[in-house]
Amino acid sequence: MPRESTTLSDESLWLDVTPASSRRMLSAAVEAFAERGYHATTTREIANKAGMSPAAVYTHYRSKADLLFAISEAGHQAVLRDVEHALADVDTPGGRLHRMVSAMVSWNASNHTLARIVSYELSGLEHEQFEQIRTLRDRLEAIVHTELKHGAQTGHFDIADEDTTAMAIMSLAVDVARWYRPGDLAPEALGAKYAGLALRMVSLRVG
Amino acid sequence: MPRESTTLSDESLWLDVTPASSRRMLSAAVEAFAERGYHATTTREIANKAGMSPAAVYTHYRSKADLLFAISEAGHQAVLRDVEHALADVDTPGGRLHRMVSAMVSWNASNHTLARIVSYELSGLEHEQFEQIRTLRDRLEAIVHTELKHGAQTGHFDIADEDTTAMAIMSLAVDVARWYRPGDLAPEALGAKYAGLALRMVSLRVG
Repeated sequence: MPRESTTLSDESLWLDVTPASSRRMLSAAVEAFAERGYHATTTREIANKAGMSPAAVYTHYRSKADLLFAISEAGHQAVLRDVEHALADVDTPGGRLHRMVSAMVSWNASNHTLARIVSYELSGLEHEQFEQIRTLRDRLEAIVHTELKHGAQTGHFDIADEDTTAMAIMSLAVDVARWYRPGDLAPEALGAKYAGLALRMVSLRVG
Repeated sequence: MPRESTTLSDESLWLDVTPASSRRMLSAAVEAFAERGYHATTTREIANKAGMSPAAVYTHYRSKADLLFAISEAGHQAVLRDVEHALADVDTPGGRLHRMVSAMVSWNASNHTLARIVSYELSGLEHEQFEQIRTLRDRLEAIVHTELKHGAQTGHFDIADEDTTAMAIMSLAVDVARWYRPGDLAPEALGAKYAGLALRMVSLRVG
């Protein structure tokens, strides 16, 4: 069984990256890592997919780990951006939790190929790169905790255990990338359903 | 960053497998796949870890995919066994859901190294092997659905959407294997906390 070889649905993640050849390399790396995993992929294969020579890849990325780092960083920043945007104009704790979970779930469904690499291939990073990505993950986790705390303090949420609830919410979103396939429920619809489950976890109900 | 190279905490999964050299191969394969992923591992590396020649491996397993299949099958059957055992002597729908989620979560925490291979490396299987494993996954999913349906029909649960709730429960358990590390909350304690969240998803509360 080959892994799913869907190309990235949305390459807007590296619109800022120049030149265009670097963007081509990132997309080729995502495709290659998704097909056989990070460790089984060679820089030569990435170069081939991007229609370049291995030497051309090395002009922009020192190593395969650097490509993985660029992909992981772009992915983490994209989720953070979506979540912050989703929270920008909602006030009630319940509304904010709903928006936050919807955004996280919907991102992992829309970008499932990239999200799998971002969540499951972190072991390929060098130590310092890993620490930088961890900082981004910690920021996302901190947002989840802030929302839970705020809802509890204002008496809107009744939470059994903040750490476990935060972990469960992150887990629900991350795991979507493992099972999601094009043709499943649309990302936004899935996001709304999972947001409803998250509200139940804090003792609120919608529908 | 090397992947975690914890050896399997519990090799009782292949106690039935004979001869002892086959068990050694399975454990060596788990260790190798966990370190660098299925596709990046060679049969020679597995043989080295098991202290055997590649030829000796081929006497028992036709291919690397056959080893992955044996591991995946043992893992899936072990979760099913634990879940069925956990449900054996409980009657109330709430009690049954609690036991079921506890068992699934606790298995994925206790066997996180193996569980990661079992959940994330399925793409390495050949088509027919994949279908056999899918049958086992479907059996587990069917148990989750049965428990949800039963609780809803008897008026104990109030479920927004059975499919989403079942998927979320499976996801919570599977994703534990991704983030769990020795030293985290004990598997049984984590199982109980997650079971509490699952009860909230169906509108029941404990604690």
